[in-house]
Amino acid sequence: MSFTARHLLGIEPLRQADITALLDRADHYAEANRRGEAARDVLAGLTQINMFFEASTRTQSSFELAGQRLGADVMNMAMQASSLKKGETLIDTALTLNAMRPDLLVVRHPNSGAVDLLAQKVQCAVLNAGDGRHEHPTQALLDALTIRRAKGRLHRLSIAICGDIAHSRVARSNILLLGKMENRIRLIGPRTLIPSGADRWGVEIFDDMAEGLQGADVVMMLRLQKERMDGGFIPSEREYYHRWGLDAAKLAHAKPDAIVMHPGPMNRGVEIDGTLADDINRSVIQTQVEMGVAVRMAAMDLLAQNLRAERAAQPA
Amino acid sequence: MSFTARHLLGIEPLRQADITALLDRADHYAEANRRGEAARDVLAGLTQINMFFEASTRTQSSFELAGQRLGADVMNMAMQASSLKKGETLIDTALTLNAMRPDLLVVRHPNSGAVDLLAQKVQCAVLNAGDGRHEHPTQALLDALTIRRAKGRLHRLSIAICGDIAHSRVARSNILLLGKMENRIRLIGPRTLIPSGADRWGVEIFDDMAEGLQGADVVMMLRLQKERMDGGFIPSEREYYHRWGLDAAKLAHAKPDAIVMHPGPMNRGVEIDGTLADDINRSVIQTQVEMGVAVRMAAMDLLAQNLRAERAAQPA
Amino acid sequence: MSFTARHLLGIEPLRQADITALLDRADHYAEANRRGEAARDVLAGLTQINMFFEASTRTQSSFELAGQRLGADVMNMAMQASSLKKGETLIDTALTLNAMRPDLLVVRHPNSGAVDLLAQKVQCAVLNAGDGRHEHPTQALLDALTIRRAKGRLHRLSIAICGDIAHSRVARSNILLLGKMENRIRLIGPRTLIPSGADRWGVEIFDDMAEGLQGADVVMMLRLQKERMDGGFIPSEREYYHRWGLDAAKLAHAKPDAIVMHPGPMNRGVEIDGTLADDINRSVIQTQVEMGVAVRMAAMDLLAQNLRAERAAQPA
Repeated sequence: MSFTARHLLGIEPLRQADITALLDRADHYAEANRRGEAARDVLAGLTQINMFFEASTRTQSSFELAGQRLGADVMNMAMQASSLKKGETLIDTALTLNAMRPDLLVVRHPNSGAVDLLAQKVQCAVLNAGDGRHEHPTQALLDALTIRRAKGRLHRLSIAICGDIAHSRVARSNILLLGKMENRIRLIGPRTLIPSGADRWGVEIFDDMAEGLQGADVVMMLRLQKERMDGGFIPSEREYYHRWGLDAAKLAHAKPDAIVMHPGPMNRGVEIDGTLADDINRSVIQTQVEMGVAVRMAAMDLLAQNLRAERAAQPA
Repeated sequence: MSFTARHLLGIEPLRQADITALLDRADHYAEANRRGEAARDVLAGLTQINMFFEASTRTQSSFELAGQRLGADVMNMAMQASSLKKGETLIDTALTLNAMRPDLLVVRHPNSGAVDLLAQKVQCAVLNAGDGRHEHPTQALLDALTIRRAKGRLHRLSIAICGDIAHSRVARSNILLLGKMENRIRLIGPRTLIPSGADRWGVEIFDDMAEGLQGADVVMMLRLQKERMDGGFIPSEREYYHRWGLDAAKLAHAKPDAIVMHPGPMNRGVEIDGTLADDINRSVIQTQVEMGVAVRMAAMDLLAQNLRAERAAQPA
Repeated sequence: MSFTARHLLGIEPLRQADITALLDRADHYAEANRRGEAARDVLAGLTQINMFFEASTRTQSSFELAGQRLGADVMNMAMQASSLKKGETLIDTALTLNAMRPDLLVVRHPNSGAVDLLAQKVQCAVLNAGDGRHEHPTQALLDALTIRRAKGRLHRLSIAICGDIAHSRVARSNILLLGKMENRIRLIGPRTLIPSGADRWGVEIFDDMAEGLQGADVVMMLRLQKERMDGGFIPSEREYYHRWGLDAAKLAHAKPDAIVMHPGPMNRGVEIDGTLADDINRSVIQTQVEMGVAVRMAAMDLLAQNLRAERAAQPA
């Protein structure tokens, strides 16, 4: 096993071998989950704290289930927005939690970089569950596992990421991971939703779906933040769907066996056609959710192994 | 054991033998709970998810305790009202949860029929914890167990259900269950709170408490939804209490050993006199709560047995 | 073991020997926590319910972790403010919970005396997690344990409690505990924040920090309730910090090895200087949080032992 980090803060610091080790372990748990097999001893006696400064039913549930299946004590902390108006307070919260001696800390925070800052203040392993527009590493890993299982490999694929790239930590972590694994990445979306400077990331950029999807193995749609719509700089929902929403006609430009992905929750009829989302011959959206639990089990398993090795080496 | 269903969505589809099987199992757990005996292996390794789209401290706690006592991993999902503005979204939520491979899904939802719809989309066992004005089957089962333990039988009893029948899923599930078990049912309340067509349900209807309670073995009061009071069509709280609130004088019309029930939470001084509610010689209100945990343990135990048998028969 | 009570409602009824028994047990758990040792069998099969009628991330988390580490089933009840507008309703909530047969009930409530009232209605052990301006016994016990570990003893120390004494249940419980253990207690703060009659408590009262801190072994700062500031009767935050906020200059009046405490959450720059709060040579603030988990484990362990002995003596 090559993954020796203390934290999982982002995809950026990971090597190819780290990613492969995480995905191999997650594959093992995906199969165990399907067989209904328990693995209660993996995190038995360890405390996992979920600190979500932004609500996320889906991601928090996935981490909670992952911890329970591995036998951890899981505690959800209700982080009211009110309790962190100052950066100072985030640090105090971190120090307070740290003093309770948790082993695994899962954090989501609206500010980019907040999770890294917090990780510097604690003795436990920290998992980034999404921070601002920065990273969402377990989402990229579950997407990678879903692709690897569907396509039989995770390299030399043509992958289109479509929609609101500019505001998306999911896109950012996916671009990093898929790039490290040597895939060909295309970003498709309105110019206003493609970050300036994206052309330096080693990706191709399109604003036309038909052109961008040409020959794609994987079509990854992003959630459109509706609250950002109907301003001056982006089109109405209806126009957005017409130009960038994925439907069967647009998908026909991709390879015949291209898979369709979405991180959820979906805006049906905005970024994706509902019928296509439910088509189990093309859509792997439910598989993504399933792989999410497996990836989080793998990440917590490997981090806990590293933590135990570190503690054994330097007794308190 | 005769109860072979996949879900517990309502009382309507149950046969007499199903009801008896559930109550017998619940009786077993009621006694085990009183002795402080554990039964951790019953649901060990299974995941129970509580999805409450309407807040309910009492019912959710009861299901959570029931699952914990049987050794399940229990996860509460915070379902903000905002996340389900469209029926579409409920289905997406169901599919997402299903992909996380839970075993037992406990659902409360403000819309009648929503839980049935959801059950069609998932592979796990679904328990209805109350849907709109439709059904609340575990409430009817805990009421039945309370009656059977107090009266020594659950048939040929005269049972009065009093108050806001029209808006009550509790009343509806109780009328179905008590009817199947061959009891004599009377509905008592203001005409405006008795549903039209109730006369076809094989019940007697009264608007006078003294008359309706004559010879009753069981007096079941319903919670008055205060927010529906003081409109044009129903009386003030004070007038309501005067005419339909249960007190010692009105209870004197029932049998001398009649028991008093209420599903909680109570409006003391509106639908029931506080002193009477606390009179342990007449009121079995606390026993109802106690039996609630036992009934939910029984229902999840039997559904999990059915689920395991189904899975063993058709390996994934 | 000398602690034989049914509940932990406050420091007031405790004897010296009770306090010592609780702290000795807590010391044991503090060391076990540092070694990462589990003690799952201590509360195995018991149900702990946390009922927080006031939000408190810190205290609730500490009780939850304590219960989980001892193997209890822990359930958090979401107590909306709306569900307890009447004292009547608190009793109904208590009776409902009691009927679910919990073993340990942890309660925080905004009204002084509410937890005592509730304890009279239930068969389980009740722990007061803070009630109004009355008591917060586990906070005083964790402060005592922190002092005992830092100073090697818990008697004949000179202890200064500084700030908003009048509104603080933390101060009240600490004054009771530290007085019982025969320490010299000084209260320092603006006259308006010292309760009238405090001079009858066997304490010395100062409004000048330099004078009050003279020769102190322990300096215990209290959180300033900012919402009470800027009214007519107390100074602005800035003036407050100038006169009563703890910084290095004021601390120089205490003994050279005096420790600095704060129950959290801190208002840095209001009642305490941030740099001083983080100075691990003087501040034991993080140790207080760590001892909090240990003290709550000890309290629940001893109460559960008493409960089991009581139940064995009088079978239900």
